[in-house]
Amino acid sequence: MVIELGANQYGKAENRVVRIVRDTPRHEIKDLNVSTSLRGEFGAAHISGDQSQVLPTDTQKNTAFAYAKLHGISSIEDYALALGRRLLAATPAAEEAEIRVEEYAWDRIGDHDHSFVRRGGAVRTCFVTVGRHAVRVQSGVKELTVLNSTDSEFKGFLTDEFTTLPEADDRILATSLVATWRHAALDVDWNASYAGVLETILDTFAGTYSRALQETLYAMGTAVLESQPGLTDISFSAPNKHHFLVDFSGFRLDGPPFEGLSNDGEVFIAADRPYGLIEATVVRR
Amino acid sequence: MVIELGANQYGKAENRVVRIVRDTPRHEIKDLNVSTSLRGEFGAAHISGDQSQVLPTDTQKNTAFAYAKLHGISSIEDYALALGRRLLAATPAAEEAEIRVEEYAWDRIGDHDHSFVRRGGAVRTCFVTVGRHAVRVQSGVKELTVLNSTDSEFKGFLTDEFTTLPEADDRILATSLVATWRHAALDVDWNASYAGVLETILDTFAGTYSRALQETLYAMGTAVLESQPGLTDISFSAPNKHHFLVDFSGFRLDGPPFEGLSNDGEVFIAADRPYGLIEATVVRR
Amino acid sequence: MVIELGANQYGKAENRVVRIVRDTPRHEIKDLNVSTSLRGEFGAAHISGDQSQVLPTDTQKNTAFAYAKLHGISSIEDYALALGRRLLAATPAAEEAEIRVEEYAWDRIGDHDHSFVRRGGAVRTCFVTVGRHAVRVQSGVKELTVLNSTDSEFKGFLTDEFTTLPEADDRILATSLVATWRHAALDVDWNASYAGVLETILDTFAGTYSRALQETLYAMGTAVLESQPGLTDISFSAPNKHHFLVDFSGFRLDGPPFEGLSNDGEVFIAADRPYGLIEATVVRR
Amino acid sequence: MVIELGANQYGKAENRVVRIVRDTPRHEIKDLNVSTSLRGEFGAAHISGDQSQVLPTDTQKNTAFAYAKLHGISSIEDYALALGRRLLAATPAAEEAEIRVEEYAWDRIGDHDHSFVRRGGAVRTCFVTVGRHAVRVQSGVKELTVLNSTDSEFKGFLTDEFTTLPEADDRILATSLVATWRHAALDVDWNASYAGVLETILDTFAGTYSRALQETLYAMGTAVLESQPGLTDISFSAPNKHHFLVDFSGFRLDGPPFEGLSNDGEVFIAADRPYGLIEATVVRR
Repeated sequence: MVIELGANQYGKAENRVVRIVRDTPRHEIKDLNVSTSLRGEFGAAHISGDQSQVLPTDTQKNTAFAYAKLHGISSIEDYALALGRRLLAATPAAEEAEIRVEEYAWDRIGDHDHSFVRRGGAVRTCFVTVGRHAVRVQSGVKELTVLNSTDSEFKGFLTDEFTTLPEADDRILATSLVATWRHAALDVDWNASYAGVLETILDTFAGTYSRALQETLYAMGTAVLESQPGLTDISFSAPNKHHFLVDFSGFRLDGPPFEGLSNDGEVFIAADRPYGLIEATVVRR
Repeated sequence: MVIELGANQYGKAENRVVRIVRDTPRHEIKDLNVSTSLRGEFGAAHISGDQSQVLPTDTQKNTAFAYAKLHGISSIEDYALALGRRLLAATPAAEEAEIRVEEYAWDRIGDHDHSFVRRGGAVRTCFVTVGRHAVRVQSGVKELTVLNSTDSEFKGFLTDEFTTLPEADDRILATSLVATWRHAALDVDWNASYAGVLETILDTFAGTYSRALQETLYAMGTAVLESQPGLTDISFSAPNKHHFLVDFSGFRLDGPPFEGLSNDGEVFIAADRPYGLIEATVVRR
Repeated sequence: MVIELGANQYGKAENRVVRIVRDTPRHEIKDLNVSTSLRGEFGAAHISGDQSQVLPTDTQKNTAFAYAKLHGISSIEDYALALGRRLLAATPAAEEAEIRVEEYAWDRIGDHDHSFVRRGGAVRTCFVTVGRHAVRVQSGVKELTVLNSTDSEFKGFLTDEFTTLPEADDRILATSLVATWRHAALDVDWNASYAGVLETILDTFAGTYSRALQETLYAMGTAVLESQPGLTDISFSAPNKHHFLVDFSGFRLDGPPFEGLSNDGEVFIAADRPYGLIEATVVRR
Repeated sequence: MVIELGANQYGKAENRVVRIVRDTPRHEIKDLNVSTSLRGEFGAAHISGDQSQVLPTDTQKNTAFAYAKLHGISSIEDYALALGRRLLAATPAAEEAEIRVEEYAWDRIGDHDHSFVRRGGAVRTCFVTVGRHAVRVQSGVKELTVLNSTDSEFKGFLTDEFTTLPEADDRILATSLVATWRHAALDVDWNASYAGVLETILDTFAGTYSRALQETLYAMGTAVLESQPGLTDISFSAPNKHHFLVDFSGFRLDGPPFEGLSNDGEVFIAADRPYGLIEATVVRR
């Protein structure tokens, strides 16, 4: 029996990089959350405390900020690729650099040149792995919260002794979507690709009659792969944000002003926990 | 010496009321977080455990959901007024009902009739107090995150033994604004008033050269009161979301590809804590 | 009609001050979250952008850290008093300094001299106001989560058309308590006082048969004021963390292994939102 | 080219199961957060909307609550195994059930029989996979926040053009540890095993002179595997919670009361982001 070091990695997480482009009076803003990590031959740091092959996480942080200027941020994928290549080059013991980026969107205030209001809503993401021999790019989105107020049912399901759920003919379908998709190549117009995927996800969500959230995920995944030939697969993690119809039947309402109070799919309570969690990948073979 | 009951109130907090209007094929959605509380002669509940004058918080919850249908939600202020009046009427011992509402905005997906994507960004709020003799309405907004990438300075300040801050000629000014304003009367077009205040806040934030966040708050407050004669005052709570210029001076960069790396107001680190917190009220006398 | 500046204050929030006392090989740790603010004659900063009377929030931050060493932290109240007095002395335009402190507790690991594990649970707080003429100290605790698994009922309450809640003879009573209390004088053993109040709160919570959370709060407040003659009042904010009995009646369980499944106050679902929110103050007159 | 369904699973997340054992007047409490999911042949649900093989997430929720009574919770691992076996038995199309549990600790208040105060601090976890042919149990802990106030250095590291970090001879080492470990067999005294691992982690953290967080993780992992022969491996995810020494050198302090103010490892600012993130697994071969 031997006890030994297994998988390991290290890096700097959640560098909040804000880049202002001010080459002209009309400024641009990029607002990122950047995490880096390195994997490779770092056994000595663990076993004997020898740091000579360890590029400090503080240096990784410095590089993330420097590259926002040196390389620039035309897209988060392009920036992450450059940053990953640099960290790998600077660290001989590393075999792979992983870069994760989240991007927060801002809108210009009116037509002002240097004033912005944070948009909120969906966060664009990427996860880039730069190895000595291979590079992989995954793009994505999270906190994309969508809701259909009808055209969703759930029935005909398996039952057992513990099943009490009634069948639903018409319910709210809502989820805070996390989606990630992988690219077959690197010569991609990252911003156009992102915009296209997002539009297809939204349109398909809206246009699909849903017999379960699973069916909606599969429809979205298929539509994205069909419209984006450069993608190899797409994965979804979708919490089923339950909206329960509020039961008005116990109210003792007679005569005005209460007459005829009913709840035909009109008033719901949005629940926090527990929630269904549906996860699915659609792949191109 | 006597020990006795002082101020007290009770209610149901954070009812997540979602109302779908589906009278036509083109649905509308209202997504609220509603909190209610009652104040009045509730000493017996505290002292002797007698609940006979206590309308349960569960009933307050039921009423919040029922009124989303019975009264409807043309605006959060209008809904809160109706809900507060009902709770006061139903509870003889109460002297005052307080209703707090947050509203989360959704956008329609494309031109779909019953599909929505959550907008994120600013949350509209109101705080309504319905008493036996007086009614007060405060409207507001929170999580309105704005940023000017120039036209902000901070200098000429008081110094002491512990002051190390250098003067700043050109910095980022950013804040996640909370603003609340009060109305002199109740015959208000609540939605138009909210839209007007928000527009004035954003325009003034963008158009004001700032020698301190205090000056920006005062300018926004003055502009709002000037443009909205029905308001009596406006209050701001503004965390100064510090964006620190990243120091590139320690980097040892000579020759290509690093030549000439500088940081002239271009790369910042967005800090979490600590943060400045500036609070000010502007009033009409 | 005149528009003018109303109430205003400014400061630095959430300075995460960690103080290690290492005068001997056996270290001590104090882990604080410190917020400061100043109120006074700061109109010029708002109206004309003149900062000459404004001690920067950055300096307030520096002072908070320096005073962790210069004055030390025998208790958060004592430290806050010293910090408030200093900020007031350093800022002629200020009339009042407000200091808020949260303290996170750590336990020693075994008998190690300089190793600690964060305790979690209740957070000790204080809120100190140092004025030119008066000083006020409020002590407190938050995130003190307590639960009685029986000896709690809720019945005999007021009902109306919207009431559907059944009476409860035996329920779980749980809350995440926020309590604050004020001191009549400043010559207090702050640590002993805090320990005494906390013990009384816990013992009274545990020992009181509750006909409503209101009754429990009043009992705790009365017991604290009776046992602590130096306190003028105590206030509670108590979310009623609902634990709903899970309904087993719909399960179709016959024969082994399911025979006789019942739920007599044994299995609950802990709910997030909405929650009851009960607030009460008990005062000494 | 074919587009098809890839990996998928579904379940109910974050069931807040609270179990009171009240067979005697001295009650016990178990407070869990339970998530379940099923993997298997669920293609029809995705592709054609056919739910006939889908046990609803609502039924999974019901089962989690029922099993808190039917099977009981002697340990979270034992409960998760029973729950996973049941869900697999009830769902012919499933090949594997995954159960995740978090346990929140409570302390008894004094010697009261049915009153508890939540402990806070570390959260015990498990992740159990019940397949048709194999069962795997992973135990763990999270939010175990530990700190050494000395006996930590970081020097001799690799440097590049972007490195500005000075070497540190004596620093604070702090982390909020997530650890997970796997068991070779199922005939384990889960509670004793957990207590043993936790004690070894704490003792080793406290007793190890650290030349990097990596070295501390490896020492802890080795010590745990040596003392627990039934474990196959242990993994750590350790954010390096930076505590930066506050720079007092810019203060202009002469004469009393400021004389001699220095900061020799005594006053730190606890930073939020960015943070180092060190991850390592130690394995038995």
